[in-house]
Amino acid sequence: MTNPIKRGWHFLQIPGPSNTPERIRRAMNKPTLDHRGPEFGQLTKSILRRLQQVFRTNGPVVIYPSSGTGAWEAAMMNLFNPGDTLLAFETGHFANVWKKVAERLNLNVDWVRGDWRSGVDAQQVLDKLNADKAKHIKGVMVVHNETSNGVTSNVKAVREALQQAGHAALLLVDVVSSLCTMDFRQDDWGVDVAICASQKGLMLPPGLGFNALSQRAVEEAQKIWTVQSYWRWDRILEMNKTGYFPYTPASSLFYGLDEALDMLLEEGMEQVIARHHRLAEVCRRAALHWGLENQCLNTNEYSDSTTALRLPDGFDSNELRRIILDNYDMSLGKGLGQLNGRVFRIGHLGDFNELMLMATLAGVEMGLTKMGVPFQKGGVQSAMDLLSST
Amino acid sequence: MTNPIKRGWHFLQIPGPSNTPERIRRAMNKPTLDHRGPEFGQLTKSILRRLQQVFRTNGPVVIYPSSGTGAWEAAMMNLFNPGDTLLAFETGHFANVWKKVAERLNLNVDWVRGDWRSGVDAQQVLDKLNADKAKHIKGVMVVHNETSNGVTSNVKAVREALQQAGHAALLLVDVVSSLCTMDFRQDDWGVDVAICASQKGLMLPPGLGFNALSQRAVEEAQKIWTVQSYWRWDRILEMNKTGYFPYTPASSLFYGLDEALDMLLEEGMEQVIARHHRLAEVCRRAALHWGLENQCLNTNEYSDSTTALRLPDGFDSNELRRIILDNYDMSLGKGLGQLNGRVFRIGHLGDFNELMLMATLAGVEMGLTKMGVPFQKGGVQSAMDLLSST
Repeated sequence: MTNPIKRGWHFLQIPGPSNTPERIRRAMNKPTLDHRGPEFGQLTKSILRRLQQVFRTNGPVVIYPSSGTGAWEAAMMNLFNPGDTLLAFETGHFANVWKKVAERLNLNVDWVRGDWRSGVDAQQVLDKLNADKAKHIKGVMVVHNETSNGVTSNVKAVREALQQAGHAALLLVDVVSSLCTMDFRQDDWGVDVAICASQKGLMLPPGLGFNALSQRAVEEAQKIWTVQSYWRWDRILEMNKTGYFPYTPASSLFYGLDEALDMLLEEGMEQVIARHHRLAEVCRRAALHWGLENQCLNTNEYSDSTTALRLPDGFDSNELRRIILDNYDMSLGKGLGQLNGRVFRIGHLGDFNELMLMATLAGVEMGLTKMGVPFQKGGVQSAMDLLSST
Repeated sequence: MTNPIKRGWHFLQIPGPSNTPERIRRAMNKPTLDHRGPEFGQLTKSILRRLQQVFRTNGPVVIYPSSGTGAWEAAMMNLFNPGDTLLAFETGHFANVWKKVAERLNLNVDWVRGDWRSGVDAQQVLDKLNADKAKHIKGVMVVHNETSNGVTSNVKAVREALQQAGHAALLLVDVVSSLCTMDFRQDDWGVDVAICASQKGLMLPPGLGFNALSQRAVEEAQKIWTVQSYWRWDRILEMNKTGYFPYTPASSLFYGLDEALDMLLEEGMEQVIARHHRLAEVCRRAALHWGLENQCLNTNEYSDSTTALRLPDGFDSNELRRIILDNYDMSLGKGLGQLNGRVFRIGHLGDFNELMLMATLAGVEMGLTKMGVPFQKGGVQSAMDLLSST
């Protein structure tokens, strides 16, 4: 029986919300400002300018007091009318969630079945678009990084398929757990709406949703007759010009975002991406040694923010998570949807470094041992070998 | 070349100051109170009561705004007159520092030479006291845990030697890095003054010094004619009756101490000690596997708060510390005094747990590899084996 009193750091290694660093938490610990006063307007303008750098776009970025799910609904509500058709791909649990949101909004989803282990196949996109002679498809939804299974999709290849097909569908991309953890280039890749949230690579607590917009997205939104108010880009974009919002912004998170953007840009976006890639490679090296199967089938689709590993048949991944939490005070991500009990997920994103990763891997390896899962010991050793040789 | 921007947690694994947990830092983040007001008096009385539980004493505990060195000077100034003789033992760097302090106070130190690798030999204490027919020795100074080399001394055995010799010398014990990390029993072991500081097992930042007093120490102090004011126990004990101090106390640290005592007592002192022992054993298991020599020669004198390890001849421990700090953002303790460059010290005390230890050991093992020190890999693995089998 472990002592219920825990001491030392809790290792929050779920694939987000990620650890919010002290520097950001301190930044948020300020008296609440007047969100109609001059200081707040300056803060917003500065944040919006730097968010463009992070999304790699010259287009506007809209911030909501919302979850990531809210930001998805916002993108759909601004761009589509009931009855419109969206092309979407079953890459995992979150793709499935966005499909259901779309259906609740009376959108028609052309659903490409998948195995929850592979990203979007660009050839399939091309075939689908070529077959859509009547141009029913108004939008293509892609999850850049499936937080639920650590599978990425090649967004650039999807854009190329759209171009090759000469199809005018809008491209909506979920970057909730890829922004600031993997390379993402809104403008270069021709993304019309990038949907994000505050609690992953941006290192903030949950509470902010983002839509980064192409010029075309802004224009298309003006043609939509769907009745809604909260999510409307036009009212927000108009007020953002002077740094304000049509309703009360989540201002303490703005102070945190201000600090997070400083941290990201002072480290340098390329360094941030490189750090995530290096640590993810080390994590995968350990998993390979353990002999645990990666939920992601294709090596070129591995995620640099999340690694989802499968346990052998007959072993419950939630039991492993419980053992690790009880004995080593570490939280790992549970398997979502059909992966519940089958996989556990290691989050290696945000404010994260080499020794935090080593602690994480040691917790997993000790948990596997304690549970009696058949695996090959030495994953931590091989991770150390890789890290100390580079 | 490592990126100068660090992300994630800094691992402060020096043998104190230890990591101050968020809960304590939050407790200290209060507006400063009136140290003559009613609330402060209640706070002090509650703190002093719980400090007695931690020192395992029914005697009073005196708190100074001071370092541990100040608390040592306080004990000497209250109990001895210039020209008095103290018996002391060269167990390591800090024993040496207290000797120098005593000499600056014009005290006469009967210095028993040592190898900086062994604790106080109780037989030697007995021999010394038996030889002191004229009862020149007024006090015996012992460092319970030498923070500089991870060597402990058996305080109980020293008290037994005093009794066996029928010698009236006072027993002064340095518990700076043993209180709340190892078993210490002021009353049971007949300690006259226990000298401590805030920044080790108490998990606070530096700034508070402690003298825990036996009834005899309080009485003996009244006979001393040494001229001093700041350190005088009598004035402090008098004012402490109502919860106040003769001069301004370091009140923000009092809020932290209040929280630290809550944390220690809610975990339970026996659990706190057991946790330190368990983690120290795991650390030593790794060191044994690496084949690095422990600076402490005798296994029954191992420290549960600090492990000092020797590098092979020709390898500079400060270079190892630099490599580990640069590459893995972890601070390890340097070798002090004659051990400078020879040993590095791992602090495993305070707000510390299993995965923090695994990260620490991984940082050491990777640093040894990077530096090219000859050692046997697999220390982290053997530490995991030990932890996951218990």
